[in-house]
Amino acid sequence: MGGHEIEQLIRLLGRLPGFGPRSARRIALFLLRDPQARLVPLARALERAGEAIKTCSTCGNLDTVDPCHICTDPLRDPGVVCVVETVGDLWALERAGVHRGVYQVLGGTLSPLAGIGPEDLNVGPLLERLEQGSVREVILALGATVEGATTMHWLMDKLAFYEGVTVSRVAQGMPVGGALDVLDDGTLAAALGARRPA
Amino acid sequence: MGGHEIEQLIRLLGRLPGFGPRSARRIALFLLRDPQARLVPLARALERAGEAIKTCSTCGNLDTVDPCHICTDPLRDPGVVCVVETVGDLWALERAGVHRGVYQVLGGTLSPLAGIGPEDLNVGPLLERLEQGSVREVILALGATVEGATTMHWLMDKLAFYEGVTVSRVAQGMPVGGALDVLDDGTLAAALGARRPA
Ligand SMILES: [Zn+2]
Ligand SMILES: [Zn+2]
Repeated sequence: MGGHEIEQLIRLLGRLPGFGPRSARRIALFLLRDPQARLVPLARALERAGEAIKTCSTCGNLDTVDPCHICTDPLRDPGVVCVVETVGDLWALERAGVHRGVYQVLGGTLSPLAGIGPEDLNVGPLLERLEQGSVREVILALGATVEGATTMHWLMDKLAFYEGVTVSRVAQGMPVGGALDVLDDGTLAAALGARRPA
Repeated sequence: MGGHEIEQLIRLLGRLPGFGPRSARRIALFLLRDPQARLVPLARALERAGEAIKTCSTCGNLDTVDPCHICTDPLRDPGVVCVVETVGDLWALERAGVHRGVYQVLGGTLSPLAGIGPEDLNVGPLLERLEQGSVREVILALGATVEGATTMHWLMDKLAFYEGVTVSRVAQGMPVGGALDVLDDGTLAAALGARRPA
């Protein structure tokens, strides 16, 4: 449909998660019907976000500053680190407003089948913080999946070396097999509040 | 979440049709997790499509040239004009490959409640073509909705002035109340093939 530039836009939109050819065409048409009000602002927002985006070298969060707003917030407790799989999980916990410490984003879970090993997970900055002695509690907030459980036990083995550090995990208030970032705020709050020693 | 640039991106994504805050965040994260491979190409494609896009002054199609590829295709019959509501409808018919003539995109339907009157519909170029005597058939392919029917009858009144022009409408093979651009190719082909005098 239309020229090469329109086809290319539809092709790239069709690669977004949850998109098919139909939704890609619908979004492209919506944007192209009023380029000045719709397409141009979105293109500019993408460009600016792409230029501004940084991965926090401390916790792995995505932000426009490094270290991120959470890591440098003086009102937060750097002694309590919540370990999550993804930035999406971190954002979900922030929206729920249930964690007043800091985070460590692993960037995934151990998955031998998918070829994801310990070296692929962003765990180094957490161990550094533990070695500096600034951490007194680690909360494991990983998904209730096979990979989440595998990753949690691997992490518990690593964390056992640090004396005086409490390791807890969020309660299984989350549906088994479910990912963390689709839970409602109440479930997240309950799961975090009822955490127990790992 | 994150800085102002990230929030602005999520806000604009949330305004896309079919999007909510959750899907906007999911798409933003998908793009921001790998900016070079995902976000930058999409921003560039949007920018290029925005620069290239033109509305065909003959038929109302969106394309990168004016007149559009369809209007200038020597293999198509300019004597048969298919009238559709939206560019999305035109694209649906093109994907089905069932119409070998040209188009007129009205850009909407008559809707007194929504304040859309005859002056808001792109019908002038069709009347010009009719006055030039180059059109021998007009196919009305409007949605089987109240507004589609209202628009069709208004158009039939206008077209009655042109002698020697056959006016037909697509068969009601389409589900009542349904829009044209969600139909499968077979239904579209049947509806167009079984068109009858209006
Ligand atoms: Zn951080
Ligand atoms: Zn055209």
